[in-house]
Parts: sequence; structure tokens; C-alpha cells
Amino acid sequence: MANSRKLLFVTGTRADFGKLEPLAIAARDAGFAVSFFVTGMHMLDRYGLTKLEVHRTSGVQVHEFLNQREGDPQDMILAKTVMGFSDFVQEHTPDLVIIHGDRVEALACALVCATNYVRCAHIEGGEVSGTIDEIYRHCNSKLATYHFVSSEDAARRVMSLGEAASHIHAIGSPELDFHAGPTGVSLAEVKERYAIPFDDYGICVFHPVTSEAATMGAQAKALFDALDASGRSFVLIAPNNDPGSAAIFERIAQLPADRFRVLPSMRFAHFSELMKNASAMIGNSSAGVREAPFIGIPSLDIGTRQTNRAKAPSVFFADAEETQKISDFLTGEWGKSYPRHDAFGGGSAAERFVSILQSEAFWDAPMQKTFHDAAG
Amino acid sequence: MANSRKLLFVTGTRADFGKLEPLAIAARDAGFAVSFFVTGMHMLDRYGLTKLEVHRTSGVQVHEFLNQREGDPQDMILAKTVMGFSDFVQEHTPDLVIIHGDRVEALACALVCATNYVRCAHIEGGEVSGTIDEIYRHCNSKLATYHFVSSEDAARRVMSLGEAASHIHAIGSPELDFHAGPTGVSLAEVKERYAIPFDDYGICVFHPVTSEAATMGAQAKALFDALDASGRSFVLIAPNNDPGSAAIFERIAQLPADRFRVLPSMRFAHFSELMKNASAMIGNSSAGVREAPFIGIPSLDIGTRQTNRAKAPSVFFADAEETQKISDFLTGEWGKSYPRHDAFGGGSAAERFVSILQSEAFWDAPMQKTFHDAAG
Amino acid sequence: MANSRKLLFVTGTRADFGKLEPLAIAARDAGFAVSFFVTGMHMLDRYGLTKLEVHRTSGVQVHEFLNQREGDPQDMILAKTVMGFSDFVQEHTPDLVIIHGDRVEALACALVCATNYVRCAHIEGGEVSGTIDEIYRHCNSKLATYHFVSSEDAARRVMSLGEAASHIHAIGSPELDFHAGPTGVSLAEVKERYAIPFDDYGICVFHPVTSEAATMGAQAKALFDALDASGRSFVLIAPNNDPGSAAIFERIAQLPADRFRVLPSMRFAHFSELMKNASAMIGNSSAGVREAPFIGIPSLDIGTRQTNRAKAPSVFFADAEETQKISDFLTGEWGKSYPRHDAFGGGSAAERFVSILQSEAFWDAPMQKTFHDAAG
Amino acid sequence: MANSRKLLFVTGTRADFGKLEPLAIAARDAGFAVSFFVTGMHMLDRYGLTKLEVHRTSGVQVHEFLNQREGDPQDMILAKTVMGFSDFVQEHTPDLVIIHGDRVEALACALVCATNYVRCAHIEGGEVSGTIDEIYRHCNSKLATYHFVSSEDAARRVMSLGEAASHIHAIGSPELDFHAGPTGVSLAEVKERYAIPFDDYGICVFHPVTSEAATMGAQAKALFDALDASGRSFVLIAPNNDPGSAAIFERIAQLPADRFRVLPSMRFAHFSELMKNASAMIGNSSAGVREAPFIGIPSLDIGTRQTNRAKAPSVFFADAEETQKISDFLTGEWGKSYPRHDAFGGGSAAERFVSILQSEAFWDAPMQKTFHDAAG
Repeated sequence: MANSRKLLFVTGTRADFGKLEPLAIAARDAGFAVSFFVTGMHMLDRYGLTKLEVHRTSGVQVHEFLNQREGDPQDMILAKTVMGFSDFVQEHTPDLVIIHGDRVEALACALVCATNYVRCAHIEGGEVSGTIDEIYRHCNSKLATYHFVSSEDAARRVMSLGEAASHIHAIGSPELDFHAGPTGVSLAEVKERYAIPFDDYGICVFHPVTSEAATMGAQAKALFDALDASGRSFVLIAPNNDPGSAAIFERIAQLPADRFRVLPSMRFAHFSELMKNASAMIGNSSAGVREAPFIGIPSLDIGTRQTNRAKAPSVFFADAEETQKISDFLTGEWGKSYPRHDAFGGGSAAERFVSILQSEAFWDAPMQKTFHDAAG
Repeated sequence: MANSRKLLFVTGTRADFGKLEPLAIAARDAGFAVSFFVTGMHMLDRYGLTKLEVHRTSGVQVHEFLNQREGDPQDMILAKTVMGFSDFVQEHTPDLVIIHGDRVEALACALVCATNYVRCAHIEGGEVSGTIDEIYRHCNSKLATYHFVSSEDAARRVMSLGEAASHIHAIGSPELDFHAGPTGVSLAEVKERYAIPFDDYGICVFHPVTSEAATMGAQAKALFDALDASGRSFVLIAPNNDPGSAAIFERIAQLPADRFRVLPSMRFAHFSELMKNASAMIGNSSAGVREAPFIGIPSLDIGTRQTNRAKAPSVFFADAEETQKISDFLTGEWGKSYPRHDAFGGGSAAERFVSILQSEAFWDAPMQKTFHDAAG
Repeated sequence: MANSRKLLFVTGTRADFGKLEPLAIAARDAGFAVSFFVTGMHMLDRYGLTKLEVHRTSGVQVHEFLNQREGDPQDMILAKTVMGFSDFVQEHTPDLVIIHGDRVEALACALVCATNYVRCAHIEGGEVSGTIDEIYRHCNSKLATYHFVSSEDAARRVMSLGEAASHIHAIGSPELDFHAGPTGVSLAEVKERYAIPFDDYGICVFHPVTSEAATMGAQAKALFDALDASGRSFVLIAPNNDPGSAAIFERIAQLPADRFRVLPSMRFAHFSELMKNASAMIGNSSAGVREAPFIGIPSLDIGTRQTNRAKAPSVFFADAEETQKISDFLTGEWGKSYPRHDAFGGGSAAERFVSILQSEAFWDAPMQKTFHDAAG
Repeated sequence: MANSRKLLFVTGTRADFGKLEPLAIAARDAGFAVSFFVTGMHMLDRYGLTKLEVHRTSGVQVHEFLNQREGDPQDMILAKTVMGFSDFVQEHTPDLVIIHGDRVEALACALVCATNYVRCAHIEGGEVSGTIDEIYRHCNSKLATYHFVSSEDAARRVMSLGEAASHIHAIGSPELDFHAGPTGVSLAEVKERYAIPFDDYGICVFHPVTSEAATMGAQAKALFDALDASGRSFVLIAPNNDPGSAAIFERIAQLPADRFRVLPSMRFAHFSELMKNASAMIGNSSAGVREAPFIGIPSLDIGTRQTNRAKAPSVFFADAEETQKISDFLTGEWGKSYPRHDAFGGGSAAERFVSILQSEAFWDAPMQKTFHDAAG
């Protein structure tokens, strides 16, 4: 029977787990046998040992594989993951391996699948970011059997790579599913749990850009000064620990505590509720360009980190040093409401994913692919 | 100075060495410091220990790396090559790594280059073959910095993959360079060395097709019977040892020795001279669809092995069992002469390759690539 | 505080887990932080996926590492385990790693410990078996910091290897701990659970000897014919699946079911209770030469598998073909009772192990070892 | 025929090549097919790319394998060497693998040999040094089939490890073979080539001791001050680059150039001739405790580096700070001549090695070893 088929989701970070979890839960609920192959940063203490979050998912099997130590070069991680996942696939014999995005772990597993003729579905291919990760992402598209992308733009790009249109499914970005329904918590609960005293607030998330590590301190100072000058209140989520984060943390420490509530991280449902009630979103996280437009709040995208990733009318742009532009946004857009922007999905990615997997024809796709040249 | 730059050519088989050698020799003669990283089948006794041919190239350094044992799965070979080549690149610090085609060794080295920001040139990307090798080939294109392709069709396909037109160079297929000039041997010498008694002859090369291993015996019988029935004489080169070869060898053993001269292999210059004087070429080698049209002799491509790879007017097609078609070709085309077909190169690939490398602008290309969407 | 120290037990098979489990439980109960690194056959479906047994142990952490696929050569398993365990030790930072015996996994982990100056305790070193395993066992002794051996003979041999007497502790064989106290089940319960109809019975366990695989069928026939001829009843535990097992299974299938109860395996407590009430033990398992003398029942050791491993007065010897010797044993020794033989331990190995670890001096041992030449 | 047997020597450093080269040359001259597996530091530019010295040996095959990059942990080097050598042994099928000493490369190859039942001879086992290297050395003895040791003390220790006396051959230390005959160069040639202006000179070699890296500067100062104060002349060979070397180099730079001739390294024959004509040897190299007594010149062993390795009457001891002891040695022993000390060999190691290999019985040794308990 179709639904007894074994799906194996590969997760290497909290970020990709956030995308894969709704798909996995929907597949589990539809009767598929769901397992996770947990590796990468999940396994490392210094990144929060987030494998524990995967273990919290009920009704699924979890397989751990430590694939690195601190300081390992990326290609050594790739080689170790290839060896370990190849052994695992021999042992576990999944019917479908699901990988996400652009990390070296996803690439390693896609290589193993292609080499061993194991069906592989790639989530959120076809996007551009202009980094080595983008190269890995497109390789994953070439190696995978199926493509579940977040937008029509992405679908076109995967087609340009030579993939068959019939294997490309624009289901939307899975993390929007969270925002589509009720969060299950009230704003009052969120404010109490995280000690947020404001009624009217913006949200700011500002991560370092690796290739600009040297100027992150100056960028952070310019941005935070502009926010401070507005006199408004902000919930500020701490940056991740990529190179340049120390300089950002230094500036954060100098912000007035009565108008800036700094939080290391938030539970997802609570963060979703907080966004739904925010007056604006500022910074350079993907939440600003993907999730804010879906929810309908105005957002200001700072700097280069999300370049080319956003097109919604509710998204504005400024460099960290463009004080006037920031000020104009905080004045002109604060508290406005936009219609839902669904170019990156309508909040039903998981449902559409499972529905496609439930078709018997899906499983009949030939393993050998042919290049589909563009018409012309 | 530009020409003291270190070029590292990766070779895993006699076949890719045949493509890379003219490029390497031309680069060496232009003053580049040329090395070979020799791995793959070259290192294995059962495949003829062809690393010795690489060592015969004068004026270049040769670095050996054993990356497999018999029976190793492809992904284990990939992992071991990634580890070994990554160590090597740290030690050798090449300015440019040159890989060819679609083997797992080329993919491993392309992965190492992309991950470590080492410039990588890919030879003969953009071609289609409908196998796992094709997937590897396109991944190599995504991972490489520069593309030296054999035809305009291939160039278009690499562009469709999102690569910048300015980094794609259609230099032609390097092995045609051999055929463009005089071979250095006379036909008389060739006939004497290889004991070929015929004045008027065709050349037949018929390799097994892995996915059709079960029927190769029947195919070989049908084809050889048709050749035999023509009453003509043939030089027959033995098949490679992919699965299915035993059945072909069995049929070869039954051919009349006075009209079929069977040779295990030939030196390249001698084979080139033999082709230039042949009345026709029959079989499924790439020489039939690429080199024969360049030389201008008629060729009959048998079966599926070269599907989609040939378009020249001098190339005809038949399945092994289509006796009548084969007979018609041997009657109608035998001895005809065609104008040089140069869609796969004009015989100056090496010269053009070196000329591009001698431009200082070539070396200024940024290591970070961006996806070039097709105009639309 | 001493007891918060992190102990990491390495287990690769059900057999070594049987030895390590009592030590781990006693250490856990004494307040040490206990983890298992589970690898080897435990992880493979075809060997019963016995990692699940380790997971059943409460109050300990379990870390899984898949280190092989079917058909992997031993040295490839060694290399993969070295890489994986080295990464793990960096991440987990154990205060003491505990390995057992002579498997390639134990060797890999001992190598990692020695190389990284991590304290390592080796259980049951100093024993001889005349196989490649023995070589690994002695290497483990050279690589380990501490030695917990089962007998004075073993202690002497570890000393001969140059190890310091002060680091060698003859605590006895841990699996005897199970037999020392009450089993917690009654014989009636055992007989009911396993459908054993006999009141008076012997136990037979006959495993294949790899280097004698060709004659195992003949040996099994001779042995089982002799048991059958005695007219007595036997509980027969199925052999393991080393080469030669098929021939033994073939003979087992021909035994009369009313006097031979064949069981694939038994829970440990039930097997212990069954042994305590048996009239004799026959075969070539280590239980016959180690555990039977401790319990005090007569045992007949068949063939070469346990050569040099037994010295107790209750242990007799015969080759499988020595029908008369077997018959004499079944007549003369059946039902006799011997005093407890404690050369391989007094049933308090776990208690003594923990007591030694609780001494602060234990942890002050220098990591750099010196060779202790024998007095002379 | 015996002499067509394939001998494979494993070399990882210039030091072990110095030991293995005389054995390999003698075996080659006796008709054995000799190959080298060259790996480790030999392959690295920063250690002088000494693989080139191995390539200079005529009449032997050389196989290179890069097994590391700078910064690799020892166990990762071990794992990579195990994988690479295992593949190589499958391909090359040597009749005997010869390893030397105590490096991680030797251990990796010994593990591969033991696991694959390939005969392995270990050179210079049974010695003590009190470091992790010593542990590796004894493991190599347990893993190897044959033992060629340098002294009776070493032979006794290998026997204590349980090895069969019949497989232990005390042939002496191979590097003494160089000193036993004429060097082929005259002292005048040596002095000219290396610009040594002295007629009467001592030789000083002072390497860092890793575990004493912090005090090496002070030790070097004390030692060199004492040498300087003597008013005598010295040829000073530069230290190796273990941790602590920078501080030694700093002191060397301050020595008066007219009485201290500092050389980075010397060709072996020239160094041998220089030693034969020296008035004394001072420092902590093994040459001082092994080769100087064989040649018959007095030597002063400084500090802990050679602890327990020397017993000859011509060897004296002092710590670097014991100025008076050093002064007494330079006064009392300078220029004295001692009878040849041959406890570490008589200069015929290679000849004896080959003679043993030429016996047919040598090759009949069973691959399965048994532990030989000491008599008692």
C-alpha cells in the first residue's frame, strides 16, 4: 500500500527542520512511515544540541549521525556524510529521501541518492542567493528526482536547469503553514512568557553577513541608532553566531532596555503570534521578506543578506547606514496592514506535499532523468 | 607572471586523458606549470594501469592517488576522492584545476574546488546522455568557474543552467585536434605494424550497453552477420569490458579471419591514420559520431549508445537487428567523402584553450557566481 | 565531584553488552554519568537490531553510530569507526571510555583514546584465543590506561605486555555477576515461557568454528548422535551465524523433538535459572567453560573453540567425534554438583569495578605509560 | 622462485627511510621485487618533500599516497592511511610488507596487514621511549608477523609481548650499516662542500622535547653557553621543527659564527664521515647514543629525549643546565677513542635481513599467531 512507504527526511539544522517538520507531520498523519536522519549542527552542543527538538516529534523514528567536529572543512564534512548516509541507506532502504535547500549535508545525501538510484525529493530548490550555498542548491536540483518549490519563479529556474515540468511542484514555502492558521497561544501569553512590556512594537532581527564581517559593527550601530531615534519600542531577536556576530552583540548591549526587549530566541508559535500583532518588521532575516508579507505587516529589509529574494509590495529596502530611509519607513509604514502576499505559498505546503505523494503515479517516475531543453 | 601559473589536470581514465592531454601539452608549451592528478581506473591493474601513459608526457608533474578497490560503490569512491583531493589541493595550491566530463572523480574534484574557492575549468560540459553520468556532468558545470565546451548546443545548455555566457567558451572537442593535422605515420606503416592486409576496409567498434547487457550477444550476432554478408573487409576494435562484453567477444571469435582483422587497441596516431583512409565506420563508439564526421567519412551509428549525440549529415542510424538498413549503408555510403563537419570543433581546441588562459582578465573572474536567468 | 564523572561505554555486539551492562548499571547507581556509544552489529537489522536492548537501560544516555554496511572489510569498519568516534569524543568529552574485549570497534575506540589522551579502561584483556581477535585484544591492552581482567592468569599476561601492576585489576568476568544472586524468575516460569517439558535435562550450545567450517556438519552429526544415543533430554540453543552454521542447523532439524527442545535464544535471567537447574552442559560456548563451573554443574567442552580458556575440575573435554568420551561424560557426570569455581570471578565484578573508580587516586594516573619490564 | 617475491616497504619520514633504505637496497640486489609505499611527511612541502629521496633509489617501484594535511589530528591520519593502504594492498598484493618503528603510518599499515592476513615485518620493535609513539611501536609488534630488532634487550621485550622467539631476529640497527664501511667521501670533501673551517671540532644536535617546549629556550641557552665557554669549535645541525624549535633557533642566531658552523642538514655519507673524524658529539639526537658509540667517539647526551635508550661506556649524561658536567665532558673526553660498541648492531643489519628472507622456511610461518607465555 502506498501509505506504508518509508519517507526519510534529512535535517542538519534547526532552520531546515522548521521547513521539514510540517511536511513530515502531515505525511505521518497520512499514514506514511516517517523517519528523520539527524546530522550536522543538530548534533553539536555549541549549536544548542537541537537534535532534541527532532526527538520531540512523536510518531516518527529518529536516526542520529554525527558528521563533523568543530573546525572541519566543508568538504571533509561532505565526505563523512556521504560515507555515513550511504551505509544508512543500505540499511534503512527508504522509498523516498527528502532533503531541503542548500547545506552540505543535503548535498551529500542527494549525491548518495543519485548514485544509488534512491528517489529523492528536494524542497525549496530554484532560489538564488549568490553564495556557495546557491551552487549546492542547484546541484541538489540536478541530483534530485522531484522538486517541491516555494514560488513560480523558483519553478521556472528549476525548469531552466533541465528538470521535467511534471516533476516540479510549486507548493509554497512550508514555514508559512505555521502562520496560516491560529497559533494556539494568545498575545497576552506571549508577552507574559517573554516579559515583553510593550503594546505597540516592531520586531528587529539583524544577522551578520559573513562576507561583510568587518563592517557589521558599524552597520549594527547605524541601524540601532536609527531605531532608537524613532522613540518606538522593539523586540530584538539576537543574531546567529556567524562571523561578525560579536560586533552586533556589542551594540545590542548599549541599547536602552526600556524600549528594546532583547531575546535569544523564541518558540515558533509564540514568535508567529508576536509577528501577527507587530506594527513592523525590520532587519535582514528571511522572516522579514517571506513571512511578514504573508502575514501582511510592513517590513524593511536591511542590506544585502536577502538580495533578490523579495518582491512583495509590503517589503521596503534600505542599507543600514541609510538613516533617512529607515526613519521614513518607521514613520510612514508603522502599523499599516497589507493583504496577504502568497507568491511564496498559501500556507498549505504540507497538505499539497502529501497529496502529491499519495498519487500512485508519483512513485512510477523513472529514475533515469533526461534534460528538458527550454522551448525556443 | 601569468604563465608561471599552476594548472592541475584531473584524469581518471584513458578516455578523459585523451581529451585532456592536448590541452595540457599546449599549456605546457605556452609556459604554464602543468601537473596531472592521476586517479580512478588509471591506477588499477585490471584496466591496464594506464597511469603509465600519463607518466610518458614529458615536462609535466604527475601525482598519483589510488581512490578505490574493485567492488567499491560509486559514492564511496566519491568520498575517498574528496578527502584525498582536498588534502592535495591544500598541499599543491593550484591556480586552476581542469576536470573533464562526467566521471565520479571529476565530480569529487569539482566539489573540492567549489568548497575551497579554487578556480575550476570544466571541459565538455553541456552534453546530454541520459544516464547518471549526465547528472554528474551538469553538477560539474554548476560547480565549475569556467566552461570549455565542444559545440554551440552545449554552450546553450550550460547557459540554461544559469552560467554566465562570458565564462563559456566553445573551443570544440579536444580529441579532434589529433585528426586536424598530419598523424606522423603513413598508412603503410599502420598496416604493417598491425598486420592489416586490406586495401579497402571499414572500421567497426561495438561496445556493450550496460543497461542492455542481456541482449548484447544477439545484437553483436545480428550486426556482425550483416557485415559479414556484405563481403567487405573490416578492422574490428575489441569492446571495452563493461557488462555484456563477454557475449560480444564470443561472436567476434566466430568471424572469418581473412576479412575481419580484430585488434585489442591501437595507438592513437595509428588509429587516426586508419580512420582517414577508411571507407566507412560502423558501430557505437563516440569516434563514429564525433570524429568520423570531422574526418569526412560516412558512419553508421548502431543502437542507443550515442543517442542524441550526433547530427552530422554523414552519420546514419540503425539498430543492430535492422539488417536491411545496415546493408543499404554498406552499399550506398561505402567510400564516400563528406566535407569536414565542425559542429564539435575545428581541431584547434588546445590552441583556443591556451589563448583564453593567457588573457589576464580570465584570472580576474570573481569566485562567487550568480545565476544568469534566461532572457524572457 | 568524582561521581559526576562521565563514563562512556562502547558496545558493538549483544555479547559485549552482556559484559558491560552490569558495570554500567552499577556505575550509574553510584552516581556516575553513564553513556553508551552503540555501534557495530547492534545497528544492523540482520543481527537483530540489538541497539534496542541498550536503549532499554534506564538512566543512561545512548549515542548511536552506524559504522558499516554488509560486506565491508574489517579495516574499512576500523577506519570509519576511528573517524566517527574521534568526532564523538571531541563533542562528548568523556572522563573515561570503557571498551571490552577484542572486536574491531573496541580497537578503533582504543586507538582514538590513546591518540587523544582520553583515559580508557579495557575489560577482559589478557586472554588468549589464537585468532586475529586475540591480536586486537592485546593491542587494546597496550592502548588502554586501565585493565579490568577476569582472572589472575589474564592479569599476569597483561603484566607481561609491559603494563603497570597498579593499573591491572582482576575483578572477575562481569557476566558471572548475573549468576551470583537470585535470577528473579522461577524454574517453573522458565519452563512455561519456553515450553520446556523436561524435569531432568542437559543444555547444549554448539557454535560453528570459522576455520573448521567445512567439517561442522560432520561434527554436529557426531555430537548430536551421541547425545541422542544417551536417551537423555536436552535444551538446545541455536548456533550463531558464523560460517558453518547452515550445516549445524541441518543436523538440528533431524533431532527428535520430544527429547530436544530447540530455542533460537533466551533472555538472560531465564537462561541463568535454566543453567542452575541443569544436569550438565555440553558444547563449545564460553558459558560451558566459564559460567557452568561458577554455577557448579559439570560441563563437556567440545572441540577447539574454547581451547586454553578453561581449567576448572568440573570441565571435561572431547572432540565431537569422540563418541565414547561423550557417552562416559553423560553417564558419569550427569547431575553431579561441584563447588563454585571462582578463577574467573566471584560474581562481584561490577561492585569491584565501581569501588575502584570511586577512588580519587584512580583518576590521577598519568596518561603517559612506561613499559614495565618483568623482573628477572 | 623465492626471490621474485614482492617486498613493500612503508616509509613516512626521512628518518625511517634512513633505516629502511639499506634493507631495501640489499633485498633489491638479492633479486626481490622491491617497492616503496611513500606517505606521511615525505609528501609535504613544508617537510622538504623528501619523497624525492625515495624516488632517487634505482631499481625499485615507488607508490605515493598523500595521507594528511597540516593540522590533521593523528587519528584522522590513521583512518585515511588505513583506507588508502587497504585499497593499495588489494591492488598490489605484496608478499611481505615492511614497516619501521612507531609512527602512525606504520601502525595504520600494520593494522591493514593483520586484518587482511598479509605478512608484515616490523623493524626496530621492542624499544622504549615513554611516549605515545612507544604504545604504537608495541602495537606494531603485536600486529606484525616478524620482528627485526636492533638489540638483545629489544628482542627480550618483544618476547615478553608474547611473540614467538623463532620470529624475532636481532639484526642490529640498519643505520649502523652506513657507518660500518667507508663512506665514499673524504673529510676534505665534506669540509669543502659544507664550508667547515675547523680541523678539530665537536658535533652538536639539539632537538626540542615536545613536552618541555616551554623551557627549550632556557635549555638551549644553558647548553650553547657552556659549549661557547669551552673555546672549542662545533658543527651545529639545526633542530627539527617540533614545538619549541623557535626558541632554540633564537639562541643559535646569537652564537659566534667563527666557532659555530650551523647547517640545516647534511647528506648522510657526509655526516657519517664528519662523525668519524669528530672529537665529540653533544646533544640529544639518537645519533649521539646509537651511532657515536658504534663509531667510537665520546658523546654527551643532554636532557630527557633519549632517556633509557643508551648504555654504552662512551655515552655520558647531563641536563642542559649542568654547566660543570658539560665542561668536564668537553675537557676530559674530547678527542678520546672508544672501541666499537655493537649492542645495537654490528653494521650488517641489511645483510642479515636478506639472508633471513632468503630462507624458504621464513615464508612458511603460519599467519595465525599464538601468545607465547614467558617460562616461569
